[in-house]
Amino acid sequence: MRPLQYVIGLDGGGTKTAAELCDAAGGVLTSAIGGPSNFQVIGVEQSAKTILDLVETCCHSVGCTIGQLESIVAGLTGAGRPGDQARMAEAIKAESARRGSPCKDVRVESDARIALEGAFGGQPGIIVIAGTGSIVFGKDAAGIVHRSGGWGRIVGDDGSGFAIGRDAFRAVFAAIDRRGPATALSKKLQKNAGLADSDAIITALYKEGFDVASIAPMVMEAAKGGDHVARIVLRRSADDLVGLIAPVVRKLHASSLKRSPFPLAFLGSLLTNKNYYSDRVRSLLRTELPSVRIQAPEAPPVHGAVLIALDGIRS
Amino acid sequence: MRPLQYVIGLDGGGTKTAAELCDAAGGVLTSAIGGPSNFQVIGVEQSAKTILDLVETCCHSVGCTIGQLESIVAGLTGAGRPGDQARMAEAIKAESARRGSPCKDVRVESDARIALEGAFGGQPGIIVIAGTGSIVFGKDAAGIVHRSGGWGRIVGDDGSGFAIGRDAFRAVFAAIDRRGPATALSKKLQKNAGLADSDAIITALYKEGFDVASIAPMVMEAAKGGDHVARIVLRRSADDLVGLIAPVVRKLHASSLKRSPFPLAFLGSLLTNKNYYSDRVRSLLRTELPSVRIQAPEAPPVHGAVLIALDGIRS
Repeated sequence: MRPLQYVIGLDGGGTKTAAELCDAAGGVLTSAIGGPSNFQVIGVEQSAKTILDLVETCCHSVGCTIGQLESIVAGLTGAGRPGDQARMAEAIKAESARRGSPCKDVRVESDARIALEGAFGGQPGIIVIAGTGSIVFGKDAAGIVHRSGGWGRIVGDDGSGFAIGRDAFRAVFAAIDRRGPATALSKKLQKNAGLADSDAIITALYKEGFDVASIAPMVMEAAKGGDHVARIVLRRSADDLVGLIAPVVRKLHASSLKRSPFPLAFLGSLLTNKNYYSDRVRSLLRTELPSVRIQAPEAPPVHGAVLIALDGIRS
Repeated sequence: MRPLQYVIGLDGGGTKTAAELCDAAGGVLTSAIGGPSNFQVIGVEQSAKTILDLVETCCHSVGCTIGQLESIVAGLTGAGRPGDQARMAEAIKAESARRGSPCKDVRVESDARIALEGAFGGQPGIIVIAGTGSIVFGKDAAGIVHRSGGWGRIVGDDGSGFAIGRDAFRAVFAAIDRRGPATALSKKLQKNAGLADSDAIITALYKEGFDVASIAPMVMEAAKGGDHVARIVLRRSADDLVGLIAPVVRKLHASSLKRSPFPLAFLGSLLTNKNYYSDRVRSLLRTELPSVRIQAPEAPPVHGAVLIALDGIRS
């Protein structure tokens, strides 16, 4: 009889980290939730510690050691670049060696990559993530992953909560300058965000760490209430988001033999909740990209990390 | 015989501070140049010291004391808000008291405000500043000052070097994602800014203090070379800048009895140099805002500070 094989997948972000330990058939043996592991914020060492704590918890629960795990795959926020992925993987290896139980194999991926894998059980499909930032990931029939967007708030936040918040503030200042029409957003910022006047808005806006995306729900509310300016902001962001999706759809079609509809899943509350914005994105997709079929993700991102780990030990 | 009256004007920014000491008739008695006085960067105390050093130098040169100056007016970068202006004026007063020669009257203004005053010798007119940021200031026949823009890089950099640089980067990433057409800007960033690939661009872009506006000259070059994408970036920024100017022109017309053309002056190398962008802005102004007459500024901003000081002692 072959000895039991274990893998572990992790999904780490700015508020929490999820872990799932599975057998070689993908059966979930245990799972756990730990603290944040965004290494861009807390540093690679601290992130590696959080991850190893979770790995140890899971191993303890099924009665194995870290050294017995065939593979550790961590999908982390901010881990989009190969250099960062390698640096973070080294830190996890070093931390497990320090704990006297060196791991066999470690792979670090972006959170979007594992979300893609989880959403379609490792099969081809497209995920569209719109949270504070935005990114589109698509996997074609050959297993090649294509991306669009995800370049950060200065150059690549198209259709994200940040972009919606920023454009709402822009519209408020255009109204102050009489460059643009009056908007209900001005009052909403005063009331709900406690930003009394333009001085208070500017002071808040340029303070380190101000959450521009936190304004997005107010824009949804204003649009629902019929505010023309809020609707323009959301329609433009929906156009931008569909503009991110289109090239990924083209690449998937180009690499596929059959032209059957591609499954597409939304992630992030901007899109998964019903609101003026998500309605608009859905409607644009129907008309602009009819070859796409919107569906709910099959499994959470943490299970996507497990699937990548399993793929690694099989190949 | 009435005793001689003196005033001093200062123009302070991130790289240097200029000072001009004048008599009550506006005759320049002496001038001097000192270090930077951007209080947002170096702090109010250090900025006040730099300013007082320059004031002392000028006073020494004409043989008067600080206490004999009727008025000190400083136009400073980043001093757009009343709260900051009051804080900075207090610091100058405190520093002059510390030096044993308390000043009579201190007023702090934005650098744009003194530039407006200098450009038209205190008369009505509009200045359009496009450097790293952008702002439009107009003074009407009643002496009321109207502004548009100047809300900083997140929400108000329309038509600025920052906006042009940001949109150029956006276009390069759109080309990478195949969302947008190929552009000569990609190669230019590689060659002239030493940004080898998208990883290098992203790393540079999100590093504290990266100068996005420094890319603007490359965009001008690419546009001159016929690059379609660079031209679109510049045309859009030109539209945005004229969009900032239009409401100020409307306000000046509304408050003026006669509808004669208003003088308008450009500041900042983006506009004062001949390039694809400044050509476009000039051409748009001719067609969109024909009531405006472009002219060179009559005097530099530091003399505008003097004019405000003189106005203060006369009223």
